[in-house]
Amino acid sequence: MASGRRPDRHSRRRLHTESRLTALRTEIDLLNEQLLSSIQKRGRIVLEIAALKRAQGIDGYDAKREEEMLQSLLNSAALEPFGPAEVREIFKAIFRASLDIQDREGRKAMRVFRPDLVPESGFLVRDVPVGGKEPVLFLGPCSVETPEQIDAIASFVAGLPGLKILRAGAFKPRTNPYTFQGLREEGLRILREAADRHGLAVVTEVLDTATLDVVAEHADMLQIGARNMYNTELLKAVGRAGKPVLLKRAFMATLDELLLSAEYILAGGNDRVVLCERGIRTFERTTRFTLDLSAVPLLQQETALPVIVDLSHALGRKDIMAPCARAALAVGADGLMIEVHNRPDQALSDGFQQFDLKEFSAFLGNLDLRGARLSEPIMGGSHG
Amino acid sequence: MASGRRPDRHSRRRLHTESRLTALRTEIDLLNEQLLSSIQKRGRIVLEIAALKRAQGIDGYDAKREEEMLQSLLNSAALEPFGPAEVREIFKAIFRASLDIQDREGRKAMRVFRPDLVPESGFLVRDVPVGGKEPVLFLGPCSVETPEQIDAIASFVAGLPGLKILRAGAFKPRTNPYTFQGLREEGLRILREAADRHGLAVVTEVLDTATLDVVAEHADMLQIGARNMYNTELLKAVGRAGKPVLLKRAFMATLDELLLSAEYILAGGNDRVVLCERGIRTFERTTRFTLDLSAVPLLQQETALPVIVDLSHALGRKDIMAPCARAALAVGADGLMIEVHNRPDQALSDGFQQFDLKEFSAFLGNLDLRGARLSEPIMGGSHG
Amino acid sequence: MASGRRPDRHSRRRLHTESRLTALRTEIDLLNEQLLSSIQKRGRIVLEIAALKRAQGIDGYDAKREEEMLQSLLNSAALEPFGPAEVREIFKAIFRASLDIQDREGRKAMRVFRPDLVPESGFLVRDVPVGGKEPVLFLGPCSVETPEQIDAIASFVAGLPGLKILRAGAFKPRTNPYTFQGLREEGLRILREAADRHGLAVVTEVLDTATLDVVAEHADMLQIGARNMYNTELLKAVGRAGKPVLLKRAFMATLDELLLSAEYILAGGNDRVVLCERGIRTFERTTRFTLDLSAVPLLQQETALPVIVDLSHALGRKDIMAPCARAALAVGADGLMIEVHNRPDQALSDGFQQFDLKEFSAFLGNLDLRGARLSEPIMGGSHG
Amino acid sequence: MASGRRPDRHSRRRLHTESRLTALRTEIDLLNEQLLSSIQKRGRIVLEIAALKRAQGIDGYDAKREEEMLQSLLNSAALEPFGPAEVREIFKAIFRASLDIQDREGRKAMRVFRPDLVPESGFLVRDVPVGGKEPVLFLGPCSVETPEQIDAIASFVAGLPGLKILRAGAFKPRTNPYTFQGLREEGLRILREAADRHGLAVVTEVLDTATLDVVAEHADMLQIGARNMYNTELLKAVGRAGKPVLLKRAFMATLDELLLSAEYILAGGNDRVVLCERGIRTFERTTRFTLDLSAVPLLQQETALPVIVDLSHALGRKDIMAPCARAALAVGADGLMIEVHNRPDQALSDGFQQFDLKEFSAFLGNLDLRGARLSEPIMGGSHG
Repeated sequence: MASGRRPDRHSRRRLHTESRLTALRTEIDLLNEQLLSSIQKRGRIVLEIAALKRAQGIDGYDAKREEEMLQSLLNSAALEPFGPAEVREIFKAIFRASLDIQDREGRKAMRVFRPDLVPESGFLVRDVPVGGKEPVLFLGPCSVETPEQIDAIASFVAGLPGLKILRAGAFKPRTNPYTFQGLREEGLRILREAADRHGLAVVTEVLDTATLDVVAEHADMLQIGARNMYNTELLKAVGRAGKPVLLKRAFMATLDELLLSAEYILAGGNDRVVLCERGIRTFERTTRFTLDLSAVPLLQQETALPVIVDLSHALGRKDIMAPCARAALAVGADGLMIEVHNRPDQALSDGFQQFDLKEFSAFLGNLDLRGARLSEPIMGGSHG
Repeated sequence: MASGRRPDRHSRRRLHTESRLTALRTEIDLLNEQLLSSIQKRGRIVLEIAALKRAQGIDGYDAKREEEMLQSLLNSAALEPFGPAEVREIFKAIFRASLDIQDREGRKAMRVFRPDLVPESGFLVRDVPVGGKEPVLFLGPCSVETPEQIDAIASFVAGLPGLKILRAGAFKPRTNPYTFQGLREEGLRILREAADRHGLAVVTEVLDTATLDVVAEHADMLQIGARNMYNTELLKAVGRAGKPVLLKRAFMATLDELLLSAEYILAGGNDRVVLCERGIRTFERTTRFTLDLSAVPLLQQETALPVIVDLSHALGRKDIMAPCARAALAVGADGLMIEVHNRPDQALSDGFQQFDLKEFSAFLGNLDLRGARLSEPIMGGSHG
Repeated sequence: MASGRRPDRHSRRRLHTESRLTALRTEIDLLNEQLLSSIQKRGRIVLEIAALKRAQGIDGYDAKREEEMLQSLLNSAALEPFGPAEVREIFKAIFRASLDIQDREGRKAMRVFRPDLVPESGFLVRDVPVGGKEPVLFLGPCSVETPEQIDAIASFVAGLPGLKILRAGAFKPRTNPYTFQGLREEGLRILREAADRHGLAVVTEVLDTATLDVVAEHADMLQIGARNMYNTELLKAVGRAGKPVLLKRAFMATLDELLLSAEYILAGGNDRVVLCERGIRTFERTTRFTLDLSAVPLLQQETALPVIVDLSHALGRKDIMAPCARAALAVGADGLMIEVHNRPDQALSDGFQQFDLKEFSAFLGNLDLRGARLSEPIMGGSHG
Repeated sequence: MASGRRPDRHSRRRLHTESRLTALRTEIDLLNEQLLSSIQKRGRIVLEIAALKRAQGIDGYDAKREEEMLQSLLNSAALEPFGPAEVREIFKAIFRASLDIQDREGRKAMRVFRPDLVPESGFLVRDVPVGGKEPVLFLGPCSVETPEQIDAIASFVAGLPGLKILRAGAFKPRTNPYTFQGLREEGLRILREAADRHGLAVVTEVLDTATLDVVAEHADMLQIGARNMYNTELLKAVGRAGKPVLLKRAFMATLDELLLSAEYILAGGNDRVVLCERGIRTFERTTRFTLDLSAVPLLQQETALPVIVDLSHALGRKDIMAPCARAALAVGADGLMIEVHNRPDQALSDGFQQFDLKEFSAFLGNLDLRGARLSEPIMGGSHG
């Protein structure tokens, strides 16, 4: 009965707890505001220091000073209830955010993240717009072998509808030193002559700084292969070579590493860079590498550079090329790289993964290059 | 002058070499024919032995006999020019091929590879055809949390166009023993009631044989999670449970391992199995797992079972869901699994990767479920 | 001339900059102190709130409240120079640290991290101390096949010097449903009888909760295989079974996931758990899996549970077993698991990776079990 | 009764089956012998063809001829019971073995597999024998920063017992183009002077062919970094540079790829190559990379080149360095690479993974460099 009229001990305790909790939460809210205000004040001082140092030509980041501040905090202050580890974590977050606001201009300055890097209509490789509305096909054999071979393939590619670029290797970075290393200079000449005869743009791989000039002389676009994505000296050199660059992702590179490799090229003054996903090395061996299609929209969120997909090297087999090509276009790729050969059974390298010309015609006939790719990303994507 | 009239020494040597090469190649051709004839004869005897042994209830493979044959060959024969290693390799290939022709019937007998396993129109989960012409959406929150939550989500899902199945976890296999483990039986009841109220089919995860009956009683379809794909005792048990099964690929499973896990279920007499790619664990951490879309056509070449893609768990982020969903449909997926929640910010698990209902409506409005998936694979695929 | 007497404009500017920098740094130091003081005050309130909530039986973590605080900060405050992203990062660090100090007791409560979990002398499996000073060998064939086979191997193992436990599979979790699945109950009896005859402790795998009782009845130690490491229902069940457990790392599991799986067992009241590294799945296929030896000291830093290494399954080959065994002992393993078989060429499973008895004797003769493992970790390790 | 006198129908059938099986097995044995004889005959012809072609300067492998032979067999012959796939597999095995016996000389000619490549006592880097009885320590900071830093570290290293080589980077291949890229030529001079002052040999990284000469002029040993392991042009160039080479495994490279990269160097006439395992990229992120210790004996089975382990880059943390160093020596490594710095907290790169000098002294004091490594591999290993 009594319990109807006044709260029992249990209820009273609960009420008391609730009001205490409310009071404590109000205190927390106030402390949050004070903390934010002090943090912002600290941020303004950090920016002033950075500006003064920049004027003196000193790099902003000072690991030693950071460590000294931490040591000072850890020595002087009462370390309760947050202990050294937590204090370190919290202040590291503040330091990191301070670097972030300093780096924001740095990152703004990083060309690879600039939204206006590529014109709406793409940039030209010879006369082919890459990164525009229509996906581009990069077609050709693994290696330049003979003038007849390249002429047959170039003639075939020239007759196809849509945008396409002739691709073949003259310098080959082979794993085994005793296998075919490419026709080198002779291959470049064969490629150039066939391309000119059939009115095609040409992309071919450059292996090192020593042979860069001769490759740049013959090619319309320079390919950096997956095995050279970390070759910073070569990246710097192609950045200065004045030709568009096709940069392939190393097969164990994170996307950040790929973007930073691109920045090496852009930093040299060359904005005409195409990124190429070509499969990553995983435990799965049903395909030669694992095709990483989510890389395409992830890259496109970060950069305006065109992103294409090399299906032949990723898959290493032809039988699932068609659905994977449709998927690559559907995920938003700006182009596809696919190996075609007039005589795959006689190819000096990678014969098993190259289409013959008839197969490729059938394949292309079933691929709706324009329809498959919606022009607008549905959400999130900042890629224009 | 004389050299004009008759071949010089060099040319003669070359001519001689050519004719010798031709003769040797003819010899090789003859030996090839003889070898093939002997190998076929050997094959017929192998099949007769296998039939005799089968009649006695003995398993065909006899590693001991194989080793004895090899030892006998290696002891008696002249091992030149092929040495022990090469002889072993060649005869192992012959042994393997002999097993293959014995296993061909075995493999024919493996249900997972049977082309007629699934009707043209798919099979029914409650009244939803899965594996037919139209892709199916598997939608719902990570976990069943409250009746209100499930009702709100079920009501939303029921109002969407197209084929869809309600999915939510009542039993949760959490990594940490002290995190939320699901509402268990209560969750099953909540799910069943909401599904009945809104006329939806329900799929939910079953964690072990001990709770299989209660899950099977409430669900229209049983989910085997990625962490249980190798749990053979559970696979056998769901094979006998008489309900359709959704089998998720373990995040480090090869495609063969996934197909063999499916065979465990099929062997129990249950053909209504859907395979689900949900991302694999690789070095790349930009997404939670790496979405392996080429797995879809590779699986469809091997099996007629439907193959769907769980985008939420593969990606662990929403911002690239749209292009990835389009790619999954373009690559031929028979359905998509995506997490939606009425209050993702309050979700008891995985809130960050779940769409809220408004986001999901926008997402779905931009996804052409039927158009994105071409009905005919272009080449190679045997999937009807 | 004048420049000799008074500082020039450049020097004056530099001096001015230096003194300004010093002043600004002093301001930063003061702000650091104030921030720390406020953060500590906030920490004390957080702990009080947590205590009040615990008394009411409410879980400490409140994602909604956290999000509300963030929104409140982002709405009210001036977001300069730190923008929303940085403010969020800094406060998330504060929230995380606040959870850490709340969880510290939680983590203290997690048994797997308790330093006193295992006695100095290890715990007993039958009469064999595991996790003590001397490494233990877990020896036996992949599968129980016949009474004669097990007797021959048990007799051999019993005759070896040092600590050893007989290991063989009666229930086999095979990838292919039509390969040998183990002798099951009959295999358990064979194993038990041979072990008793030769005075050995026995470990064998348990596959699911339904067969747990019969396995526990025959075995001295229960093995959870790599494919069941995520099988939380089974983990809970063996935690209550009253027998020591050998928990193998899934070949796709992080070390944290392994420790949390162990916690599932420990939470059931069973502290006698041995962790087993057995190779992880990577791109490298020269060995069957990749032996991850750094996992041993990393685990030993976190937990006092013994850590052993299964060399046979990690390597899948015998030719490098000796150096790898020495390395496993040198890195601090509390034991080794190695497959031995009296007739490996006739084994029903994994014959190629099993030692025959003579090979194993030679192997063991060259392995200094006690000397190879230093008793004291040199630095860092907290493992007693 | 009757059954006592004569075999019943069942027994008779069994007897009949047994005798038929015996007869069939005898037939198989005869066919095996005939097959082997024909295969050997075929092998002799293949070798004769290869010799004739070699005399004409033609490469032995003829994919076209191989395919023609297969087509001929598949067209002409009865394809029962072995079908096209099996016939192809068996003859591919024969073709492969035929290439193997042709390549055997090729492989014998591959220098990297030559057992006599390295003298018993190792080869000299300046005056330090590498690959001899005693393991060598490669010690130094990540980057050359200042003359004082290098002098302090060189002085420290010179004072340590045992074999050691000073290692530091002057040219740094950084992921980010705007981070510290090394002091380049100035760094080389600083390194050379400190080494000469303290009587140390020096190894430093070379990034490309353009800067090879200046690096070779200052260093006693040239390092090819993990990111350049596939840089075939650079490998060829260092093969001709006349200095010992330290070749690091790319973090995505198989062991075969590493050996073939070494062959690129050896083919240039330079046998003084050290291979270095430095961790591979896997899903596991507790360490920076995953230390792959089984790579050491696997490589040593294939090649006589010394194999060392870079612990600092593999682990990216110091706390488990001691047990991992012991394991690396126990597994047979010919040396260890470990980063030490006089002021790790001020390091311009990778400070967190570098030992300070005092830490390193403590570490080394507990490491038994000679005792930990047994001189004789126990089995299998062909490494002298």
